[in-house]
Amino acid sequence: MIQKPRGTRDFRSDEMEKRRYLEKLMREEAALFGFREIATPIFENTELFTLKSGPNVIDEIYAFTDKGGREIALRPELTAPAMRFFVNELSSEPRPLKMFYFGQCFRYERPQSGRYREFFQFGAEMIGSAGPQSDAEVISLAASIMKHIGLKDYRIRIGHIGVLREMLSSSGASAENIPLILQKLDKKEYEEASQRMEAAGLSKDSISTIIDVTETVGSIDVLEKIKGDAREHLSKVFQILNYYGFDNVEIDLGVVRGLDYYTGLVFEMDAPVLGAEKQICGGGSYSLTELFGGEKTFSTGFGIGFDRTLLALEREGFETPKYEISAYVIPVSDTMKDECYKIAADLRLSNIPTELDLIGRSLSKNFKYASSINAKKAVIVGEKEFAEGCVSIRDMLSGEQKVVKIAEILQEF
Amino acid sequence: MIQKPRGTRDFRSDEMEKRRYLEKLMREEAALFGFREIATPIFENTELFTLKSGPNVIDEIYAFTDKGGREIALRPELTAPAMRFFVNELSSEPRPLKMFYFGQCFRYERPQSGRYREFFQFGAEMIGSAGPQSDAEVISLAASIMKHIGLKDYRIRIGHIGVLREMLSSSGASAENIPLILQKLDKKEYEEASQRMEAAGLSKDSISTIIDVTETVGSIDVLEKIKGDAREHLSKVFQILNYYGFDNVEIDLGVVRGLDYYTGLVFEMDAPVLGAEKQICGGGSYSLTELFGGEKTFSTGFGIGFDRTLLALEREGFETPKYEISAYVIPVSDTMKDECYKIAADLRLSNIPTELDLIGRSLSKNFKYASSINAKKAVIVGEKEFAEGCVSIRDMLSGEQKVVKIAEILQEF
Repeated sequence: MIQKPRGTRDFRSDEMEKRRYLEKLMREEAALFGFREIATPIFENTELFTLKSGPNVIDEIYAFTDKGGREIALRPELTAPAMRFFVNELSSEPRPLKMFYFGQCFRYERPQSGRYREFFQFGAEMIGSAGPQSDAEVISLAASIMKHIGLKDYRIRIGHIGVLREMLSSSGASAENIPLILQKLDKKEYEEASQRMEAAGLSKDSISTIIDVTETVGSIDVLEKIKGDAREHLSKVFQILNYYGFDNVEIDLGVVRGLDYYTGLVFEMDAPVLGAEKQICGGGSYSLTELFGGEKTFSTGFGIGFDRTLLALEREGFETPKYEISAYVIPVSDTMKDECYKIAADLRLSNIPTELDLIGRSLSKNFKYASSINAKKAVIVGEKEFAEGCVSIRDMLSGEQKVVKIAEILQEF
Repeated sequence: MIQKPRGTRDFRSDEMEKRRYLEKLMREEAALFGFREIATPIFENTELFTLKSGPNVIDEIYAFTDKGGREIALRPELTAPAMRFFVNELSSEPRPLKMFYFGQCFRYERPQSGRYREFFQFGAEMIGSAGPQSDAEVISLAASIMKHIGLKDYRIRIGHIGVLREMLSSSGASAENIPLILQKLDKKEYEEASQRMEAAGLSKDSISTIIDVTETVGSIDVLEKIKGDAREHLSKVFQILNYYGFDNVEIDLGVVRGLDYYTGLVFEMDAPVLGAEKQICGGGSYSLTELFGGEKTFSTGFGIGFDRTLLALEREGFETPKYEISAYVIPVSDTMKDECYKIAADLRLSNIPTELDLIGRSLSKNFKYASSINAKKAVIVGEKEFAEGCVSIRDMLSGEQKVVKIAEILQEF
């Protein structure tokens, strides 16, 4: 038996309907904020991703050589493709350009619980504007999506990459050392981070202050620990998020997101119901366009882990509308089959979702099947009644059954 | 500047909204017929496609070796993955199992007008039932989709693979030769087909009769040329399609679809507006499950070329709902920005799609921008009015403007 590739999934109808419902809710909220959908190819020139994330990224992605000798890769994320598209074709559009996207991404890694080689991301980018109001616009969209999809418990943590960068720099760390230290701080690996800071020549005092700030999480008041632009910036964002009624926002100066292209504010969102693997969204302000051959353009964006967000919803007892169909048409005998095809056609032509018995089940099996597909009403076509111009219609929930003239079937729906 | 890979496309918002709209219409119609969505991975084990289409298919697809040494391929079509999924996990579901899917497919070929390396397919399969009523169910879905999306001129051509197979066999062609001859007949390359029939030992008379039947296209009456099961089968399908009011159906005994796994009825749909490359849908009854390690299961399905169908609609002057946004909030001066953020938040919290000026445009540029994004109303927040608890609301279509109390803004939408 041929299997699906390792780390990938097939989705049954029940699952797909749930996913499409969630996707629809996310789209609705993006539209409410004036973000519009774009799409890019499933694969890109590999260079796009090595430029963004360094050559080592190749170890973690599906990269291959095509028949024409081109290095291509299945996209591991959607920000780089969106920014490439912007540089190639959208850079003269009015700004800020507000876009969202939804689609598959791929990573080559050992499959584990909740992590797949093919996974789904919903993301948004606001391109060509900077400042707290832009960051707030993007974070409020991310948070409003979580609210709209009905996630009960989620937390927003906001940091600013400038805080630690500035502290590291003024304490004597070199431009080369800073990213190496930030990587460790981002992962909250404080011992390794301290070692790297020591090696970079920082004093014990500086190291302890920096670790203290990294560990600082709390309400807006913790901003007192820092000074300068970052403080004002974060206060403003806090204020705008407040207009949307979000009180689940914390300042977390340890959010660093480990990637060089972030330029200022960074944020993450968690769903505590997921336990250790609780992060469901990450984003911040960045500039990537200059890497791809465009002019430097400040942007803010986020990516939501679609699969993990769905998992969080399900753990909270998320209910999607159950599949149902309005009519199920049943021939009592083979001679009535043709009449059933006609009735089904009429119902469908009147926009009434309709199923029919195509394989000659017995009446009792047909009722069982009608229940299993959650049919609201069964239309039962028997010879005797049909000769009198009638059929029976059974309400599948109450079990009530009545005789209806064929010409009046539509009125029952 | 990094470009997108050759033969792929980026989609702008206008284009995406059109595509999502079309996709939504197709989904709606599938639901009306009781078909439910499934999804499979973007890539599969290469063997899935070589089993279905022979080893030569590798030349036409994106096939590569992953880091674990597995041969994988970007899916060139969606029937094989759907049937693999069925064999792996769905074979004990009640039958017939009616599924549809929508997604990207990939082929490695020279890109040309209207043919892309990444393209989109909408398809449906009805698994586990045979006979004219099943075939008719599937064809009526395909045709109803075309009707529902608003395609004005489309034609359905129905054939039966059994007719030519039976004629070739009874005229003396061997089981090995039949597929080679059918390939040529399918492409309407009659000279080569004749040569192959001659080489296979067929008489001149037989060859001329077979070519005559292949060229037979017309109304139900042309079935008089043939006999046996195929004739009865096609008549019945014709009759059921008639219940749906489809009078754009022709019998075309030359529809062969060149692939071995088709077992009976085959059909194609054309949009004449596309000229030479007019085919927008193809399908038929087949059995693939036994190739993938399952039990032989008769099925009927089709694939719609999404890109080509959209192109046909556009050539006919298809109009999609134009993008619009309900509100655009404008600060007359910088001091009013915060009030604008608040008003925008209130509108969005009331589910009113809202954009706002985040970058400090002048008033006249803001009006221009509001028109360009098709904003229905502009909410203009000026210091003087605001001090009196008011804002101005401008109807962007009529140009009428009125002063409204802040507490009553929502009532304007």
